Amino acid sequence: MRSGYSFEVHARDAHARVATLTTPNGSVETPTFMPVGTVGTVKGLSMEEVAVTGAGVVLANTYHLWLRPGPEVVRNLGGLHKFTRWPGIMLTDSGGFQVFSLAKLRTIDDEGVTFRSHLDGTMLRLTPEESMRIQSLLGADIAMAFDECPPGDAARPEVERAMARTTAWAARCLAAPRDPNQALFGIVQGGVHTDLRLQHLETLREMPFDGFALGGLSVGEPWQEMHRVLDAVAHKMPENVPRYLMGVGTPRDLIAGSLAGIDMFDCVLPTRNARNGQALTWNGRANMKQLRNRDDKGPIDPECDGPCCTSGYSRGYLRHLFMAGEMLFGRVVTQHNLYFFGRLMARLRQAIRDGNARSWADSVLDRMNENDEVGPADED
Amino acid sequence: MRSGYSFEVHARDAHARVATLTTPNGSVETPTFMPVGTVGTVKGLSMEEVAVTGAGVVLANTYHLWLRPGPEVVRNLGGLHKFTRWPGIMLTDSGGFQVFSLAKLRTIDDEGVTFRSHLDGTMLRLTPEESMRIQSLLGADIAMAFDECPPGDAARPEVERAMARTTAWAARCLAAPRDPNQALFGIVQGGVHTDLRLQHLETLREMPFDGFALGGLSVGEPWQEMHRVLDAVAHKMPENVPRYLMGVGTPRDLIAGSLAGIDMFDCVLPTRNARNGQALTWNGRANMKQLRNRDDKGPIDPECDGPCCTSGYSRGYLRHLFMAGEMLFGRVVTQHNLYFFGRLMARLRQAIRDGNARSWADSVLDRMNENDEVGPADED
Repeated sequence: MRSGYSFEVHARDAHARVATLTTPNGSVETPTFMPVGTVGTVKGLSMEEVAVTGAGVVLANTYHLWLRPGPEVVRNLGGLHKFTRWPGIMLTDSGGFQVFSLAKLRTIDDEGVTFRSHLDGTMLRLTPEESMRIQSLLGADIAMAFDECPPGDAARPEVERAMARTTAWAARCLAAPRDPNQALFGIVQGGVHTDLRLQHLETLREMPFDGFALGGLSVGEPWQEMHRVLDAVAHKMPENVPRYLMGVGTPRDLIAGSLAGIDMFDCVLPTRNARNGQALTWNGRANMKQLRNRDDKGPIDPECDGPCCTSGYSRGYLRHLFMAGEMLFGRVVTQHNLYFFGRLMARLRQAIRDGNARSWADSVLDRMNENDEVGPADED
Repeated sequence: MRSGYSFEVHARDAHARVATLTTPNGSVETPTFMPVGTVGTVKGLSMEEVAVTGAGVVLANTYHLWLRPGPEVVRNLGGLHKFTRWPGIMLTDSGGFQVFSLAKLRTIDDEGVTFRSHLDGTMLRLTPEESMRIQSLLGADIAMAFDECPPGDAARPEVERAMARTTAWAARCLAAPRDPNQALFGIVQGGVHTDLRLQHLETLREMPFDGFALGGLSVGEPWQEMHRVLDAVAHKMPENVPRYLMGVGTPRDLIAGSLAGIDMFDCVLPTRNARNGQALTWNGRANMKQLRNRDDKGPIDPECDGPCCTSGYSRGYLRHLFMAGEMLFGRVVTQHNLYFFGRLMARLRQAIRDGNARSWADSVLDRMNENDEVGPADED
């Protein structure tokens, strides 16, 4: 890895591993979950509150910050760390995924993507070089290569075309003018086709990336398919740099990914679901809107030692805040969910160190499945 | 005052005074500003953050809590203090003001008010007895008598009718079954007619209230009219109990009220304006949405020693949060505005102790007026 960065593996249990990722802005133990701070804020929380959850890395979205306030403004205000007040590690995605999912009227060619802004309809063009330029201005510790992410139901030839384009764009990202102090991760595509994944991995691993990610998973395919790909591919990714599973996921998926050998995860699930009323607990999911919470004096999760559950926020009060549309609900439950993810990853790291990750995982997931308070209709 | 309560005046400067109000849930120095926690939350803030602003009393709205979640639910969850996690003094209004301002199709008779809920159209009826019952269940330290508040442009006969009804309702509030450990304040009406105000005050002061409020001000009349009434009436209110000016106000009004002899104030201005982008500073108002803030690395107010201005939130970042509609904006600027009000009242108390309240007030208000960043169109 480049100067100022290191990745040191401390313990292994089968394919799973515990490591320390160090960057110029601090260190984090992996496997780790990275909260999503789309426009430079983890929705509703102060960065102090994010830190309390045990998060070491915050992800920001290049697409959103490019559109508003613009990378030059962020740079003028001191770069992403100073701008957002996050004292730890920051990572920016390439902007590609949001172009594919949010923007309108997009057309892809071999040079890049042309699309209309979802905010004001402006025509914009994102290329590997432009993504590198924007990410350099934003100034996160880790930048991501600009890739093409096909939908979860894409046919094999479409996946192969996206792989080829992603390979060409990866080379252009590495060659583009960019901040030499920023780490750059490459992204492996290949859909749910194990052979394509391994083929793309063989191509990308020869390129001087500082880490590798799996993109194009958790994009609509059944979770069993994703787990199959993870089991076949993750442990074959380069050993001595971080492995990042993008856009994932549920407690089930974080555990499966870590057991398969993944080090980093990000997902809007704990933050977005919190705002919709859903809290995560060691007994599965709980939905604060449910009438059963109306007169409940207890915390979200009596087993949780986080700031929400130990400071007197009752389920009854939280339900009231949700029903009244009060901001305080979102921030309290968002912090709770991120704290839960932070503890889940910490316990998982301990289980890997103890050499019993698989049995720990089975018992944790069984208990969550058995006690889940949320019906199938509410599933993510 | 009743057992567990006391009100002790420490210092005077002309009509202004510094005192300590003590209740079973703590003490507060007056003059004091009370943040509004409408449905049991000061919008966007944790109660820990409210406490940091120097607030000693939080006001909650009986009308809102009556409709949702209902006073029985609040009682079941331990009462308003436990429900909201506010460790200090709480005050509930009577519900009357919201019925007059929010509810639909209301009809007033001598017994009470019938109206449709603004939430779901249910027909409801509020009477002095019902207000006392609800406020007893909510369990604040201070309850308010149920009054009739005529609009700011009401003609003199209408004001007189409202006064007479308020007097009759005051007697019924005192006679109604209610929590004997809760203090009860009477409300003086009389519009902008000084003679009516004094007349109503003479009637109410004979009743065994634990404090007295001025209602029906800041309801549309020019502020000069309100100041005229304050100057004529406030210092004639009973000496040995708190004097509360309801629904006020701006820094200008808090200062004028305190100089006239008022002890307590509440208003949504610092919290509501914060959510709309407006911050209060020692140089007057500043609007975070303005383009001039886009690249500003400085805090809202370099002179402010509050948590927002000393922890790295730049005007540029705050403007970005506002433009992106992010929750973090509201909470940071709300806490800033409440902190500013807290400091304003603390400095005002010091000026009263020092015996130079009037000259202190003039210099503070002159400076705010001269440097205000907000145009007339943005005025409250």
